[in-house]
Amino acid sequence: MEIVKYLSKIPLFEGLPEDQLIDLSKITVTLDLGKGQVIFSEGDEGRGFYVVLQGRVKIYKLSPDGKEQTLHIFGSGEPFGEVPVFAGKHFPANAEALEKSKVLFFPRISLIRLIEKNPSLAMNMLAILARRLRQFTVQIEHLSLKEVPGRLAAYLLYLSDRENGSQEVRLDITKGQLASLLGTIPETLSRIFAKMSKQGIIEIMGPNIKILSRTALEELVEYGGGL
Amino acid sequence: MEIVKYLSKIPLFEGLPEDQLIDLSKITVTLDLGKGQVIFSEGDEGRGFYVVLQGRVKIYKLSPDGKEQTLHIFGSGEPFGEVPVFAGKHFPANAEALEKSKVLFFPRISLIRLIEKNPSLAMNMLAILARRLRQFTVQIEHLSLKEVPGRLAAYLLYLSDRENGSQEVRLDITKGQLASLLGTIPETLSRIFAKMSKQGIIEIMGPNIKILSRTALEELVEYGGGL
Repeated sequence: MEIVKYLSKIPLFEGLPEDQLIDLSKITVTLDLGKGQVIFSEGDEGRGFYVVLQGRVKIYKLSPDGKEQTLHIFGSGEPFGEVPVFAGKHFPANAEALEKSKVLFFPRISLIRLIEKNPSLAMNMLAILARRLRQFTVQIEHLSLKEVPGRLAAYLLYLSDRENGSQEVRLDITKGQLASLLGTIPETLSRIFAKMSKQGIIEIMGPNIKILSRTALEELVEYGGGL
Repeated sequence: MEIVKYLSKIPLFEGLPEDQLIDLSKITVTLDLGKGQVIFSEGDEGRGFYVVLQGRVKIYKLSPDGKEQTLHIFGSGEPFGEVPVFAGKHFPANAEALEKSKVLFFPRISLIRLIEKNPSLAMNMLAILARRLRQFTVQIEHLSLKEVPGRLAAYLLYLSDRENGSQEVRLDITKGQLASLLGTIPETLSRIFAKMSKQGIIEIMGPNIKILSRTALEELVEYGGGL
């Protein structure tokens, strides 16, 4: 019953109906780990994912010359290994307890059986992840809107200058790549393009972009933000 | 076959094996919408979710006095309505085509039947959402690390000043609330707390925080970033 209560507080399961939390609690295994204990190694089959109950877990890779690179440190309530396990893949990195820790283990095969019996568990988990994704998108947009328009403007001017000040430029990378380059996500980048277009700064013509106001772009670069 | 190819490019389904894309394509219905056509209204049962194929869709609410508030505009490749539909809830807002549009409809009941027959479809979709969530978390962290430490430092100094410069302060809001207040997410906030603690600026004692270096906090406020 303790576990059910704990599961209800983990973001991955937040808002699941109690019967589904009870079902989940029945498939979990609690692992007590000593400091430095290995949880999984790179290349291991993803037989199940984990949630930190107490303590801290380090995810790391080893370079060919044995140098350790820490990718992430997870604490209480945070899941790890869930992406490869949901996808049915091998673990792409190593996991080790940084200190004495308690970790919940969710076997993949038991989870699949639960979902088979009760697809609404999967639907509810999809809802939870989709909702968080929406919130994160808003958050990224909020954080990006101050700086990304200026960076995008700089990039468009760079493309134009590269083509001897041409008024029409061609995006030669995908939207996903451009978003990464500018430090945002495709959703927010689309929003910024739409805003610039609405304000008559640019005109989008398929993969080409027509610069309608070079001055507006230069101002965005200089003063940042404010679309 | 056209639809399968299109589905494979939608982030929500990106990386699904072809047989699962074919299964999905069989349950989708393509809707041709005229400009201004209503797709669903607030309070309607969430019988299925949508993905924009062509055109744009506006999500909006009506205030009690009939004033319209646009919440979001979705374009090609973007899903909408999926959160309430996965969760089995009613639509919390209205959706309308902003222009002549084509929209894919995925009936909830057919999706549940597919998952029942093939739980790995659900697992794969969970993997896709979980992976994007991870990427977004990294993105938010990246965007937040420049400004949020300074804001957190300001908040801690404010708490201390409120208690006549006490060296120990008590967080009187949840971590989720504090994250929102500072414009970030709990995961990143935890990371910033851990960094400050590691650098000997603060000591975390349960819900209480001991300020070890007031000067370091003041510098963070003044110069921002740089943890």
